[in-house]
Amino acid sequence: MPTATDLITLSSDFGWPYPAAMKGVLLTRTDGARLVDISHEFPRQDVRAAAFWLREVLPWFPPAVHLVVIDPGVGTDRAAIVIRAGDHALVGPDNGVLLPAAEALAGDGNGIDVFEIIGAEPASSTFHGRDVFAPAAAVVHRQGIGELPGLDELAARSTYESIEFPSPSVGEERAKGEVLVVDGFGNVITNLPGDILEGRMNGTVEVNGEMIPVGRSYAAVESGQRLVTIGSHENVELAVNRGRGDEGFELRPEDRVTLSW
Amino acid sequence: MPTATDLITLSSDFGWPYPAAMKGVLLTRTDGARLVDISHEFPRQDVRAAAFWLREVLPWFPPAVHLVVIDPGVGTDRAAIVIRAGDHALVGPDNGVLLPAAEALAGDGNGIDVFEIIGAEPASSTFHGRDVFAPAAAVVHRQGIGELPGLDELAARSTYESIEFPSPSVGEERAKGEVLVVDGFGNVITNLPGDILEGRMNGTVEVNGEMIPVGRSYAAVESGQRLVTIGSHENVELAVNRGRGDEGFELRPEDRVTLSW
Amino acid sequence: MPTATDLITLSSDFGWPYPAAMKGVLLTRTDGARLVDISHEFPRQDVRAAAFWLREVLPWFPPAVHLVVIDPGVGTDRAAIVIRAGDHALVGPDNGVLLPAAEALAGDGNGIDVFEIIGAEPASSTFHGRDVFAPAAAVVHRQGIGELPGLDELAARSTYESIEFPSPSVGEERAKGEVLVVDGFGNVITNLPGDILEGRMNGTVEVNGEMIPVGRSYAAVESGQRLVTIGSHENVELAVNRGRGDEGFELRPEDRVTLSW
Repeated sequence: MPTATDLITLSSDFGWPYPAAMKGVLLTRTDGARLVDISHEFPRQDVRAAAFWLREVLPWFPPAVHLVVIDPGVGTDRAAIVIRAGDHALVGPDNGVLLPAAEALAGDGNGIDVFEIIGAEPASSTFHGRDVFAPAAAVVHRQGIGELPGLDELAARSTYESIEFPSPSVGEERAKGEVLVVDGFGNVITNLPGDILEGRMNGTVEVNGEMIPVGRSYAAVESGQRLVTIGSHENVELAVNRGRGDEGFELRPEDRVTLSW
Repeated sequence: MPTATDLITLSSDFGWPYPAAMKGVLLTRTDGARLVDISHEFPRQDVRAAAFWLREVLPWFPPAVHLVVIDPGVGTDRAAIVIRAGDHALVGPDNGVLLPAAEALAGDGNGIDVFEIIGAEPASSTFHGRDVFAPAAAVVHRQGIGELPGLDELAARSTYESIEFPSPSVGEERAKGEVLVVDGFGNVITNLPGDILEGRMNGTVEVNGEMIPVGRSYAAVESGQRLVTIGSHENVELAVNRGRGDEGFELRPEDRVTLSW
Repeated sequence: MPTATDLITLSSDFGWPYPAAMKGVLLTRTDGARLVDISHEFPRQDVRAAAFWLREVLPWFPPAVHLVVIDPGVGTDRAAIVIRAGDHALVGPDNGVLLPAAEALAGDGNGIDVFEIIGAEPASSTFHGRDVFAPAAAVVHRQGIGELPGLDELAARSTYESIEFPSPSVGEERAKGEVLVVDGFGNVITNLPGDILEGRMNGTVEVNGEMIPVGRSYAAVESGQRLVTIGSHENVELAVNRGRGDEGFELRPEDRVTLSW
């Protein structure tokens, strides 16, 4: 029976059918790795959104190799990297997309180890997911995450790109932040910590100047009504029950959000 | 080699990337369960459509645990339930979405057993798929479907929500029913039994007052032409060859359909 | 642990939820086959596009049974076939969709063997993916690709439909071809061989009368700018960096493309 350590997860912004070529490479070059799709519908070439979602999702997985190809700089001189984070490894471009998830997987206070993929001679300049990253993920899977420092295909690297999500400003009477991402339901996910809503459940807060009910679940308000809630990521989320929060609040990623009470 | 009883299927209206968090929970809490996606593109919060499609699709599977999260009432006091139906188990919200499939899986004349998931302390109020249902599916998978009555996490339950699909009225010269669902091709699936078309193949019937050819396959009419056929679910289906039946007939779910001959 | 030869890949234009019924049939009728989705988002009923993409993607896989259901003629008298190509088998309708991939899998100079699926009595006229092709793929998987000629369910067949992609005309100063497909990013993939761009990298060529930069990667031009490149399929590709080539060049499948230099 396959064990959890047989896992390779796949994430990309490829839609179809390119992910299948990566799966073929992984199956050809490993001894029966179990492949699990995270998603291939990440917003196109949006490194920040992918970094956010990967940080939310990957920590729920058992030890695995995580192949991530959101790579607007494919074919440029950006490096291809592998990160060891606790019992996990992440494989992808050096554009910061891996970092927030890697830090979450390593756990508080634990470091990560970063390696550059060397010696790859990709067959194409436009599909490194198939020609560079999937082969590297297969090598890491075959050899084991513990063996990373000794692999011929990798060289330790001390510098790498990272992504910082903007920090909110939380005061006594108001909190200022911004929209991080909008999910597929249209829920608007901010960088404001959800705990500022504790003690205000079933009351109201002002969101960008409008009074909005606070509820613990979408169904706390009538269908079509707006609410403020704590999302599953523990951030403040702006939503419409059975509707789209991004339309109800007219907000998009990077827009400013001020809550006051 | 994994056996069929290792299966957990996943169904939701989540799109992306939330299903991946459920997969992570299932893989972490089982010993190598095999995960198969039914779909994560079920129409958003449409309990009736999901109930219809699950009844069509799940009976083709070998014994499995079926995790189903179409849950507009997440965070309200609707119960979380597990149903034993023959060699299968279904896990999801108590809103009726599981019932038609459970009855089909149990088979004619066989009962189902319904249990409430008790003692769960979900980390979020908005993502019970990850925090309640996936952990329960993992427990059922680990312990085995036959062990359900003894599990600490479950309590037998005698009342539960169900969904009744509307019954058609079939007479000597006409049949009255309604549209149940529209599939992704635009095919309009009614609640009229397909056998009313037997004996009329390659003839015509009147559909809401218009004469329409009856054919056994879409290609029975020219490209772009409308036809009446028997769908793979054995119901009367209104379609357009290489086109969309919902547009050709201007019909949507719950619209009335009258066939006469 | 599953071996590579346990693989069944699935390709269709079904979207959702119909592929799940095929998966259920495959899991019921095999002893734990490993299922890998190629894609179920192939353009609806577009046999040529599917044939192109399958030829690009399937050769990356280890030996497998490839189930392919892009089948606008379902329910007509088109045959259902199985092709043996090297260590692979392909199962699908006799409309040409399997041929380019089969020839690529067999390899240069090797023949393919074509069999007709006989004796199937499909439960429906509209869903042969579930009722004819998936059962046949399960038989092939169970018995082994080497055993194809002896199977009761198959009869050798000497004639079959094929698809020829149009050949380009390449001269000293210009090349004339056409658009084969547009991928999900909007990249326009032509039938012109990529090697006509070698020696012109970082220069320009004329594309349908307009001077366009030639680059090895999308990032060779500014965001939003058009370029000509060599795609991962080794054909000339017309793209827009971080945008859609089909909109930038106003080109669709079967449109003519002339490059001159």
